[in-house]
Amino acid sequence: MTETNPRIISRVEMSPADAKWITLKKIKYVDQEGVERLWECAERRTRKSTGVDAVAIFAIIRSKTNAFPPSTVVIEQYRPPIGKVIVELPAGLIDEGESAESTAIRELLEETGYVADKVIEVSPVVVCDPGMTNANMQLVVLNVTLDDQLEFPTPKLEVGEHIITKVIPMSKLKAELEEYARKDFVVDARLSHFASGFALAQELKM
Amino acid sequence: MTETNPRIISRVEMSPADAKWITLKKIKYVDQEGVERLWECAERRTRKSTGVDAVAIFAIIRSKTNAFPPSTVVIEQYRPPIGKVIVELPAGLIDEGESAESTAIRELLEETGYVADKVIEVSPVVVCDPGMTNANMQLVVLNVTLDDQLEFPTPKLEVGEHIITKVIPMSKLKAELEEYARKDFVVDARLSHFASGFALAQELKM
Repeated sequence: MTETNPRIISRVEMSPADAKWITLKKIKYVDQEGVERLWECAERRTRKSTGVDAVAIFAIIRSKTNAFPPSTVVIEQYRPPIGKVIVELPAGLIDEGESAESTAIRELLEETGYVADKVIEVSPVVVCDPGMTNANMQLVVLNVTLDDQLEFPTPKLEVGEHIITKVIPMSKLKAELEEYARKDFVVDARLSHFASGFALAQELKM
Repeated sequence: MTETNPRIISRVEMSPADAKWITLKKIKYVDQEGVERLWECAERRTRKSTGVDAVAIFAIIRSKTNAFPPSTVVIEQYRPPIGKVIVELPAGLIDEGESAESTAIRELLEETGYVADKVIEVSPVVVCDPGMTNANMQLVVLNVTLDDQLEFPTPKLEVGEHIITKVIPMSKLKAELEEYARKDFVVDARLSHFASGFALAQELKM
């Protein structure tokens, strides 16, 4: 199949009545001084009874023989809101009845082909951009153990999903993301903050 | 002045025509296979000609005498979209004609009272939640050098701004954020990802 570069045709204001996935809300609230105030916010319509929209996955990919350094996998995906290919952590919306852990294991397999052998950590529910939206998520850290050399399994993508994976040694994560940004990619803020924190601990030797 | 706990009175759907700060857009785009598709997205109306919505600030607070360990400052702020007090990095929208650096230095002073003596790093433009919004930002790392002991300067808040600052040693950042989450606070994803990256580098001794 011949692939073309995706492109935006039009970008027009829409009413929430015409929107299936997200909506706008006007919030009336009382502030710390007892004054009634207004705030505007965007919300997903897809949140299930779990109360959490999505998970992102930080996979620690290790070799039993130390054939390669501890690495992680990021994905490249075209995102229409930005109109560019975004470099981000594997991620996905949580389905009804699904836990954060099982969503993370499923999405890692679907988007990257890697099979997690251990859930290392599930973060508390955190909020993505709390001045503008109510979007929330949990970060799930998964362990992927490979027998020897790095392997590149085939993702189990759905029809219409276009995702490219890239495995990066953790000690080079920040530098590689900066390299992406110098080309025509844009990096997700949560991934870049993770990488900045990792690099700062290395620099401070803490 | 007696302070009360802020609370939500109502949360109702609104049309973009009634919204001052944000809007909804329907995006028509052509995907990798040449198929025309639709996507829904929320946008801020406040973006200036710089093309970047906001900065967040990671301040490295150090003592000339090593009287305290390298620390950072986070803020606690009620956020109506979430209806809770959020723990986040100091941050602010970029005004017209302002650079990321100068916005960061100004906001750090206003929100925390700390005076930066050096810009350590300005990140590329990164995107906050690219499946849902076009919101973008830059992370600015600032250095704050104190002569000896930790000082707690007075923030220069605007009328109606209610922000509490907390200084946290970097090596305890992740644990302190988890402690916040066990209480009635919610942590911002970018801050929590930074802390997770920092802690992972410490654990892996990289």
